[in-house]
Amino acid sequence: MNGAEAILRTLADNGVEVCFTNPGTSEMQFVAAFDREPRLRPILCLFEGVASGAADGYARIKGKPAATLLHLGPGLANASANLHNAQRAHTPIVNLVGDHATYHRNLEAPLASDIAALARLNSIWTRTGETTDALVALASEAVAACQAGAGGTATLILPADCAWSDASGLGPRVVAPPRSRCDVARIAKFAAALKSARAPAILMGGGALSEAGLFAAGRIARFGVRIVIDTFFALQPRGAGRFAPERLPYFGEAAVASLAGVDFLALAATKPPVAFFAYPGVPSLLAPPDCTLETLATLEEDASFALQSLADALDAPAAPILAPQTIGDTSPDGPLTAEAIGISLARHMPEDAIIAEDAVTSGLPVYTQTLGARRHDWLCLTGGAIGQGLPAAVGAAVAAPERKVIALTGDGSGAYVLQSLWTMAREKLDVVTIVCANRAYRILDVEFARTKSGEPGPQARRMFALDEPHLDWTALARGFGVPAVRCESGESFDAELARAVATKGPTLIEAVIP
Amino acid sequence: MNGAEAILRTLADNGVEVCFTNPGTSEMQFVAAFDREPRLRPILCLFEGVASGAADGYARIKGKPAATLLHLGPGLANASANLHNAQRAHTPIVNLVGDHATYHRNLEAPLASDIAALARLNSIWTRTGETTDALVALASEAVAACQAGAGGTATLILPADCAWSDASGLGPRVVAPPRSRCDVARIAKFAAALKSARAPAILMGGGALSEAGLFAAGRIARFGVRIVIDTFFALQPRGAGRFAPERLPYFGEAAVASLAGVDFLALAATKPPVAFFAYPGVPSLLAPPDCTLETLATLEEDASFALQSLADALDAPAAPILAPQTIGDTSPDGPLTAEAIGISLARHMPEDAIIAEDAVTSGLPVYTQTLGARRHDWLCLTGGAIGQGLPAAVGAAVAAPERKVIALTGDGSGAYVLQSLWTMAREKLDVVTIVCANRAYRILDVEFARTKSGEPGPQARRMFALDEPHLDWTALARGFGVPAVRCESGESFDAELARAVATKGPTLIEAVIP
Repeated sequence: MNGAEAILRTLADNGVEVCFTNPGTSEMQFVAAFDREPRLRPILCLFEGVASGAADGYARIKGKPAATLLHLGPGLANASANLHNAQRAHTPIVNLVGDHATYHRNLEAPLASDIAALARLNSIWTRTGETTDALVALASEAVAACQAGAGGTATLILPADCAWSDASGLGPRVVAPPRSRCDVARIAKFAAALKSARAPAILMGGGALSEAGLFAAGRIARFGVRIVIDTFFALQPRGAGRFAPERLPYFGEAAVASLAGVDFLALAATKPPVAFFAYPGVPSLLAPPDCTLETLATLEEDASFALQSLADALDAPAAPILAPQTIGDTSPDGPLTAEAIGISLARHMPEDAIIAEDAVTSGLPVYTQTLGARRHDWLCLTGGAIGQGLPAAVGAAVAAPERKVIALTGDGSGAYVLQSLWTMAREKLDVVTIVCANRAYRILDVEFARTKSGEPGPQARRMFALDEPHLDWTALARGFGVPAVRCESGESFDAELARAVATKGPTLIEAVIP
Repeated sequence: MNGAEAILRTLADNGVEVCFTNPGTSEMQFVAAFDREPRLRPILCLFEGVASGAADGYARIKGKPAATLLHLGPGLANASANLHNAQRAHTPIVNLVGDHATYHRNLEAPLASDIAALARLNSIWTRTGETTDALVALASEAVAACQAGAGGTATLILPADCAWSDASGLGPRVVAPPRSRCDVARIAKFAAALKSARAPAILMGGGALSEAGLFAAGRIARFGVRIVIDTFFALQPRGAGRFAPERLPYFGEAAVASLAGVDFLALAATKPPVAFFAYPGVPSLLAPPDCTLETLATLEEDASFALQSLADALDAPAAPILAPQTIGDTSPDGPLTAEAIGISLARHMPEDAIIAEDAVTSGLPVYTQTLGARRHDWLCLTGGAIGQGLPAAVGAAVAAPERKVIALTGDGSGAYVLQSLWTMAREKLDVVTIVCANRAYRILDVEFARTKSGEPGPQARRMFALDEPHLDWTALARGFGVPAVRCESGESFDAELARAVATKGPTLIEAVIP
């Protein structure tokens, strides 16, 4: 048994079932070993950004890590934008990166680079081994490390000679420690603070957005405390029969206005809110200057438990405020809009669907219109690096083949890592990709106005417009093996979405919107 | 005049004419300023790997740097694989990366990251400024820095508030220092060494592969010294009427065999040759252990001058060995192959064409068959990070709109940064893209055999095959606005290539090969 096989077996022993990969020469021993470790399913991606984004989407749904397998520094670089997003979501990922043989690393071969320095930028744990046995032991550590604390990417760098040399055994089985729970004293303190505050609120993110955490938050809301969630979150269970908290607005001034008057803000698995970007004259810190911010549960702690305990300590009603089901009887009509996409999604999404969203300006109207849809999970772009929605949908569909996945993307963001479509076709993933094609980087139109640079000139306008030529998403999808249609009216989108949802397997709808 | 405008004007004053970009909110001031600095042409790319690869291709052809403009750390990450390739080609690039405002950088906003640490991995110079005026001055320095020494990427990180604040003036005009020339004594020493060696050779790379350097090398070859060039190089002028040196083989054992017996190896703008990858039992160092390696000219020096001086010192013949024109009269027939693609290219490529090659296994047969084509320039993938051919063709076509550019790519490598096709369509670039579609990562098939892991099992085979489904490149091209055809025979490829070459503007040929 060589090192590559021992590492794959160690990962499988520790519950890793999937490896999203684009391997190269330095990873060939692992490719060979996949046929000797059937518990670990390799999934080929045409670009490493697919692999890292898929690993992120997978773990958000499955609750445990997938592995990646990347080709040296450039493969890791291609994966890095989506590792950045995953880091902001605190997603556990076992990130395997091949390297040259130990004796070849420092010869300045064309593909040599400082992999560890690159990995550390988006990893909570980065290691390599100089011997096969050291590397095999580190494979176990990587599985534990990525699930420790708040969770994140554990990068293990694999020198080729350690992979091809003999291993003397497997790595140990490891157990991820449970999240720590806050004590009674802290809960009592927060209960008192919320009661004595004039206008208290709780801001929730990360692990607070679990089924249990949201249930408890809904009880606290009924008690009278305002509940707000982060603008961008890893996963929100939502829809009819669930508590629907407020979502903090994206633009700094809107967020400041939203939080105006709050005098006590409890943070549950999140940090003090800051603006996405700075603008002249707009504050970067979103909470009022005289607001007291206190951490109810850190990102590393069991925030759901903290919220449940707090609801009990407040003697909050046993039943939370729950969203009613609001599903339209009729198809939207007229020209297609983001709102109409949302209305149709609410009409046709089956129970337990997953929406992986990276649609920038179109995302919020769809989010709003699906508030009363059947129960579903919503995955956000957490790190602002566009090109995450399609890969995350790949991972979500691999994690939950029995659930319908909706990839909701923009045309600008969708074009970033569009190679995801091929993996959807190859693995026959049950994903409906909706491209909200406004034929522009529409957000930049908005942002440009906020720079107060006057009207954009012809060059500036050309930097936002995606219409010379516009992308033909039906052709792009077919090029990757995914059947596709284009819709330009509410009626046609509604009908095509109904058809797509009723069909198993990948499909794409280019939704042309203003 | 704000900082953004002052920086663009400073770059334009220093000869920068083009900026390949995918901007975001933090770069909006630059987008606005493009309309106030008409000397600097912004070219929008749908992914940052297009921008960095295009900047690489542009400078290789134009002999001076282009700028990029990227959106924070993730934008730089997406550009990094092609910056890695550019670094290996020693290509000068002014790499502009937007950042959060100085007072916003450390607030852990979703897009915050350590941009400088990432940039340093692929840059020879990395700076940021804390004030507008400091940043404007650094813009001049960046232009000089990227052209200093052997050349490379100079990364300037642009805090948003420095861009929107007022500038008090422009940065200075700078002049890139000429490359230093080696002295007479060194030349005399090398002339003596070459004369006294039993089996001497010169290995050339980088700046040695100029028109003048190759002419001198051809004279030295006629004198009787063997001339070899690096396996992968930034640019080689070649074709009929030029000296055609040997090219060092890719595989380590073939390269070792090729250099066996050489007792003195002079290095002209290159380093001691090393294997691309390590393999069990194959040496990493390619020159014979008892061979003397000496540097005739460093990467930083004027290697062409050194070769000319050496030819004179050797009293080599005035006329070099030159390749004759060998262009076939008739179209290849039968099933299409990489060799047939090369034969047709030799038939139809006009004088002064540029080939940007990233075709992995298909590249060498085409290279061999175009030895006697009309004079042309060949650009290689220098850093091994696939996905560089299409972007490099974008940059080459922008640099030389009067020359025909051939992007020669594989289907695996082409799928990496295929968004390049859109910029070809939008800018109406005169590029014929040839996708050598063997529907596999064919190189990995070869590399797998070299791992001595036996026959690949079904999982391994599935990691090399691009046939479930295969990519429909005609659909992908049309999706990005580029007209395309598919060819499966030598005759049809020859006819379509003739047509494509005769037509101005972008087109794509999917060349289906075994």
